[in-house]
Formats: sequence, C-alpha cells, structure tokens
Amino acid sequence: VTVSVLYCVIIMLPKCSPIPLVRKMFSEQRERLAKAMGNPVGEFALYKGGGDVPRNSSDTCFSWRQESYFFHMFGVEIMDCLGAVDLRSGEGIVFIPRLPDEYAVWMGALPTPESVKASSEVEHVYFVDEAAAALKKHGCTALHILDGSNSDSGIKVAAPSLDAFGDFDVKTERLFLVHTQLRVVKTDLECAFFGALNKVASAAHVQVMQQCKSDWHENQLEAAFLSYCMAAAQCKCLAYGGIAASGKGPAILHYVDNNRKMESGDMVLVDFGGELHCFASDITCSFPCNGKFTPTQRTVYEGVLAAHDAVLESLKPGVSWVDMHLLALRTMGRMLRDGLGVIRGDATDEEIEKSGLMAAFQPHGLGHLIGLEVHDVGGYIDGVTPPRGKTPMTSKLRTARTMEENILITVEPGCYFNQVTLEAALRNADQSPLLVEDALRRDEVWNFGGVRIESNVRITGAGCLNYTNVPRKVEDIEAVMAGTKAWPQ
Amino acid sequence: VTVSVLYCVIIMLPKCSPIPLVRKMFSEQRERLAKAMGNPVGEFALYKGGGDVPRNSSDTCFSWRQESYFFHMFGVEIMDCLGAVDLRSGEGIVFIPRLPDEYAVWMGALPTPESVKASSEVEHVYFVDEAAAALKKHGCTALHILDGSNSDSGIKVAAPSLDAFGDFDVKTERLFLVHTQLRVVKTDLECAFFGALNKVASAAHVQVMQQCKSDWHENQLEAAFLSYCMAAAQCKCLAYGGIAASGKGPAILHYVDNNRKMESGDMVLVDFGGELHCFASDITCSFPCNGKFTPTQRTVYEGVLAAHDAVLESLKPGVSWVDMHLLALRTMGRMLRDGLGVIRGDATDEEIEKSGLMAAFQPHGLGHLIGLEVHDVGGYIDGVTPPRGKTPMTSKLRTARTMEENILITVEPGCYFNQVTLEAALRNADQSPLLVEDALRRDEVWNFGGVRIESNVRITGAGCLNYTNVPRKVEDIEAVMAGTKAWPQ
Repeated sequence: VTVSVLYCVIIMLPKCSPIPLVRKMFSEQRERLAKAMGNPVGEFALYKGGGDVPRNSSDTCFSWRQESYFFHMFGVEIMDCLGAVDLRSGEGIVFIPRLPDEYAVWMGALPTPESVKASSEVEHVYFVDEAAAALKKHGCTALHILDGSNSDSGIKVAAPSLDAFGDFDVKTERLFLVHTQLRVVKTDLECAFFGALNKVASAAHVQVMQQCKSDWHENQLEAAFLSYCMAAAQCKCLAYGGIAASGKGPAILHYVDNNRKMESGDMVLVDFGGELHCFASDITCSFPCNGKFTPTQRTVYEGVLAAHDAVLESLKPGVSWVDMHLLALRTMGRMLRDGLGVIRGDATDEEIEKSGLMAAFQPHGLGHLIGLEVHDVGGYIDGVTPPRGKTPMTSKLRTARTMEENILITVEPGCYFNQVTLEAALRNADQSPLLVEDALRRDEVWNFGGVRIESNVRITGAGCLNYTNVPRKVEDIEAVMAGTKAWPQ
Repeated sequence: VTVSVLYCVIIMLPKCSPIPLVRKMFSEQRERLAKAMGNPVGEFALYKGGGDVPRNSSDTCFSWRQESYFFHMFGVEIMDCLGAVDLRSGEGIVFIPRLPDEYAVWMGALPTPESVKASSEVEHVYFVDEAAAALKKHGCTALHILDGSNSDSGIKVAAPSLDAFGDFDVKTERLFLVHTQLRVVKTDLECAFFGALNKVASAAHVQVMQQCKSDWHENQLEAAFLSYCMAAAQCKCLAYGGIAASGKGPAILHYVDNNRKMESGDMVLVDFGGELHCFASDITCSFPCNGKFTPTQRTVYEGVLAAHDAVLESLKPGVSWVDMHLLALRTMGRMLRDGLGVIRGDATDEEIEKSGLMAAFQPHGLGHLIGLEVHDVGGYIDGVTPPRGKTPMTSKLRTARTMEENILITVEPGCYFNQVTLEAALRNADQSPLLVEDALRRDEVWNFGGVRIESNVRITGAGCLNYTNVPRKVEDIEAVMAGTKAWPQ
C-alpha cells in the first residue's frame, strides 16, 4: 500500500486525557450491597473475577475483560482474582493470584497484596490460596454466591469453585437478585464516569462525520472512531461489535462486516461505543455519506428524530419503558403515514398500533439498560420487574421496567426498510391493508436501508439527562459535515 | 474532549485496498492433506469450526475468529460449522448451521448451501443437521479427528461432538500430527497472502514512526497502527495483544498496558501485527520517540540489528533454529562487550555462551513459526521435530526445527535491561564474573528499557525472503521520522 497524499484522508487524533476512575465508587457499591442484604454479621458475598480466554486452542487470548459483578464491587482489573464483601460492614477483600517471580520478566512488577491495596483502596488484599483462612480470620461463617442468568444472553454467571470453602455455609438465594437490582440504579460517581466516557464517544462520532468521504469503505469509519477513542481516553476496544453500514446495510440490524465501499447518495448508520474500565457507551448516528440529505432521507431521518425527541421529553421516573417504546413507534408511524406515504393516510394511530405493523419497521426494542455492559443486567428479574411482553411489538424489549432515578438507558428508535419484515407485513392480513404497497416499493424507499438515532441518557428526578452530544438536526449534521460549524458548539 | 488544532496530530488513513483471498489456497490444502494421509478410500477428516465466545455472562461476544485448522482446509468464515475432507480425493464438504428465517433481519441474507458453495468454492455444502447422512452418501466409513495440543499454549484442539456419527469408525492417531506438519510448510498462495498482509503492516509501522510525537501516550501509537490496518486492508483487529512500550517499558516482554505518557529521550518499542482472514503479521520496530538516537541508544540498537541481519544472512533450508538463536545471542554479546562495555573485554564468545548470560539480556527465543496464528502450530511435535532444549538459553525457544523451504518464521532478537534478570545474573556464580557491574548500573544502561527488531521471513530454496519493509538502519529511521525520506523508497 503506497500512501500518496491524493489517496489520504486526515484523521485528527486528540490529545490523550485519561478519565480518572474514582476509587470511592467501589466502596460505595459495597456499602450499598451490605445495606441491601441487611448488614448481617458473619455473612460475606464471594465473587469470581474474569480469567483469560484463549482464541480456540491457540497461544493468543482475546483482549482481557474483568467480570462485571466483580468489577462493580472492587474496581480491580487483575485476572483470576476472587473477591469478598463483608456484608455487615461493606469492607472488601480481594484475593490475587500468586504468580511465579519469573513472570515479572513478562509482566513487570507483579501485583502484591500491598500494591493492590494501595491502588484499589480495597480494605484487605491476600493471595487466592489464603482465601479460606482469611475469610475465617475476618469472622466469616456464611458465603453468598451469585446464582442466576443474564436476562439478555441467558448465560449463567460464573461462581467461584467452593472446594476450598467447605467450612462455610453457602447461600445462593439472594445475592444475584439483590446485586443485579443494585447495578440497575447507578450512583453519582458511576454516572459521572459514564458521562465522561460519553463525551469522548460523542467527539469520536463527530470526527467520523466530519472526516467521512463518500467513497470510503465502511471500515474506515470504524477505524476513525476506534482510533479516536483509543487516543483520547485509552479505550482498549469497542464496547460491542461496532456497526458501520451504508446503502441497504442499515436495514440489517447486526451488520458487523463493515467492509462495503460506500457510494455517494448512501445513508450511513454508525453504531459505536468505546469501552473503558468495563464501562460501555453506545451511540448511533445516521447521516448521508456525501453530507447532504435528499428529501426522502430528510423525511425518514426527521421522523426518527421526532421519536427520539418525544421519548426524551417524556422520560422520567414512574413512566413505563413499554409506553416509551410505543410512543416512539407511534411517532414514527405518523411519519410513515403523513410524510412518506407508505401507510395509508386514513389509518389512525390506534389502527396502526393494534395491527403490530410498526414491528416490521423497527424490529428491535427502544433501548436497553447500560453501564458495566452495553446491555446491562437487570432488564427482567422474576418477581421484581414487569415480565417480558408477548406481542411482536413488545417481546423484543430488553426491559419492561418502570423508570427510576439514576437508571442509565439507551434511547434508540430506528426506522428500517428491511425487505424480510416488510414482505411479511405485506402478507399479513392485519397489516397489509394499512400499507400503500406502490409507495413502499419505490426504489428510494424499498432500498433506503434505515435510520437509527441512539443516545445514552440518565433518568433524573424531574426527567432525563442526555449524555450524548452529537449533531442531531439535519441542518447541524449538514453544517458539521460541510465544515461550516464546529461541534460541540 | 475538545479537539483543538493545537492538540491534534494528523494520521494519514490510506485508501482501502482489500487483499483478495484466493480460494484455490484451500482446495490445494485439502489435496495436500489427502496425499499426506495416503489417499485412503472411504476415510474422511472431520473438523469443528469456531463458535461465538461471550465475554463472561454478558450479551456481548469477543470479536469472532474462525478456528485455524478448519480455516486452513475450507477458508469459510461462518461460525458453528463442521467440515469434512474426503481423504481419497481432497474434496471438501462444509456443513453450515441451519438458522431461523427471522435471523435475516439481524444478519442479512442467511448463508445457504448454494451461497456458501459459490463463495467458498468448497465442493459440497450441506446443513450441520445433514452431516451424518451426507457423509454416508459420499461413501464415508471412517472419520479422522484432531487429537492433540498446541505446543505453545498446551490447549487441546476442539474436536466435533461425535453423537451424530456413531456409524463411523473414528480414528484419532494420525490427523493432528499430519495436519500440524502440513501447516508448518506453507504454499505459494499462503506466502503471497502473508506477504501482502506484511506490506500493509509494514506501512502501518512507518506511519507510526512518522507520526510519533515525543509527548504522546503510548496508546496513541496503538491507535495509529490499528486504524491504518483497518482502513488500508479491512483488518478487524490486531493478531495479538499489541505492545507499545516506552522508557523502561520495553524490558517488560509482554507489556500491553500501553498507557504511559512518553518523554523525550525514551526509546520506544512497538510490536504490532494486523490480522486478516486468520493470517497474522508480527512486526517489531524500536526507535527513539523524539526521532534522534543517543550514542548509547545507537550502540544497543545497532547490536540488535547486527544480530537480526546475521540471522537473515544465515537462514536457509537445513540450518537449525537453535543455531540461529545462538548466533543472535553471540552477536549481541559482542555488542555488550565491545560496544557497551557491560561484559568484560577479555570474555570470549565461548565463555559468554557457556555461562548462559545472554538469557538475562534476551529472555525469549529468537522467533516463532507464523501463519494462521501469530505463534503458528508445529513448533514441537513428538517424534517429528527436535525436542525442546533444556538450558536457560534454549528452553524458551518455540521451536528447535531444522529450517525447510516455505517455512514462515519471525526473526526477533532483542536486548533488554530487565532488572529482574540482570540482578539474578549478578548473583549467578557463572555469569557475574563476566559482567562489569558499574557499567551495567549506569543510569542510561540500567534504565534503558530495551530494543527488539522483528521481521517476518520466508525460508526459500537458497536463503530467506524478508516480507517486512520498514526502515531498519539508524540513519533511515532518523530520516523517515524527520520527514526527509519517504518509505518505502
């Protein structure tokens, strides 16, 4: 690859400004857990940290990631640890692996109880092989361990091996439920870190927009985003498989190939978030790769933006997430009817909703809890949250919760012209009569692709706070892409 | 993060030029395997492809990677496949998962036997649930499966579940050994692809050197490298945890934190390789972050370069990798004695080698096989290759093979001032008398960090071919970093 100036585009890498991790975040979490468990004497919660994961049978491992429940309690980023919380006091104990001295040649100074205690501010640190004896010394008689499954993936949370803990009473009933619920409602320190990460990710999205050239391959958008987050804030990777989709690609909800050459006139959808200290951000922007919306692109985009804005105006403690989802679909339905004309002009909001038609245009839920995972835990908890809906319109929702102050959640309405779901709608006896097939099959609509607008917000006492700061209005996107407007303003 | 021009550096993203994957590569491999197995009638090799790997219990998976033995035979990058090779003819059969139609909304057009056959040029494609019946139809009576462990990681290669294959005779004795040996000696098509990938990775290293500013954080070097490879050739990730180490960091062999702020005067070591279609590249460059070598930096650097060049001049079929390793250590020992003066001037090459002292300066082996993994398989095979050495000087080698034409291997001598290994040498009765402790403990030596120079080469009929094209001479590095010389020339 010969680099010539003719073939180059310029990416501005920012000055590196690491985001500080405030250690008090974790002692606060331990105190919250102890309190939620009733501050019992002699009872401890025991956690297993994340291990290294090889790629198949090779000598190479995936980029290491701490396990989130463990991280939530201790904030320690060392592999193969155990951790315990004294549920009376909230004091933390971390058990680190005892590594051979020679590992120092490969890893640098090895972690010691002293160094980990100093850097993590966890109250006590021992080696893993001292765990049972240390717990006894600290007055532990009973161990609570996590016993439950992630409501998105269905995967059971890993619990520590109990071989060395035979002397303790083991309790599996409460910890998963209580700790999962605790992770749903964030602390101010968590929100502050999340906000700082969103600021970086927002700036990275602005860079992507500003640098985008209409003859790029999609993966160049990914390269620009990731390099910005790595350089600006030392993110090691994206929080999830990033999506850079152009042309018809945005209609494929998990398009991660990101390898198509774009063409002038394409709408582009970029869904990227940096990950830092286990925290995820998750932002989607949609824009025309040549920087100028066509009338049809503007109509669809502004319909999705209206849905996004309507939800943000309505979000507050006490509202049902299902209602927000239906509000977004109703708002987009009006655009499809009154703006694009692909739904019959005489169809009422109620008829559209009753038919389930909007699930063909937005086959995913309005958003999801976010925090230490991009799809954070606690969307559904048996006996605690409302159960998953059963209609095509609601069954895809990752939570049906009533909003509470300090929930972090994504708001991500989307309107897609997915030919699989639209053909099914055209065959559906309830939905087909509402559609104007000729209008829907026009090339500029049928092959439109799609638009998603996704922001990361915090539920506040009075409403919500949007941590995402990217141009959203058509005029702002066009001006930022043309270089005539700076962002943030 | 406010982006201001003052705080920005400019990274040139190249035009995207995807590297074509020639499908004949894989039918050739199947024919090679069939021949090596003796072209038996009715016997098939059965492989298990790679599955998705979740990050702990979350809903997020690591970046998906095909399993390398499977990829080597079929070149298919779809998860959860099985694959079979008819060992009489070398014909391939791939079995793809049968996915629900609704997945098309998330993944786009689902793979079908027809589409996979057309794109992979594998002779036959069925669904996984048809595997046993299809194998019978194709005349299979016996199945060979992989049964062995990776000689670097010790991890057993995954074999397919045999629940559905009860009617076939199962053979575990030969396939692992034969296939592993086959992967060691590359085909021309493999070498061509590897060379093209190295060209991109080399250009990315040149960009890193050219853009490096002496007040960068190390992770900005990683961002610049990765974004170049993603943009230039659609690499999805690095082939391994990349190293960007400055100051004393290069003495830590697996330093992957990459988060330190550099200081003018630091030597920098960057060990990065892009991964594409399972192929790895693995290149290390060492340079002063301010673009100008000090006399001490020049001495050490040129000693390592002399070792690198001496090995490249000697590498050819028939030479022992152990001898190449000893040649590199001997060459660097002379620099430490005659150039840097940290080994006594009257010490002979033989005395230095006999003492094992050089294992303190280079605690790793000279290099490793490379191909579909960064540490490719087949370094040691019981009964086939020379066994692992037992001395501190040779036991870290990842292979002790005699070189053969079309082996791909890294040549990576390094000289490190690692305080753990050097303190041990100073306490070692055989090694300490050879060291000039005062000279060794001088600040500019003791805190030097280290230098590694790593190239990726192919053993040819007459010698070797270096696929890595980066500035190596001190003058060239200084000129490229100063912007007074273009590279490649």
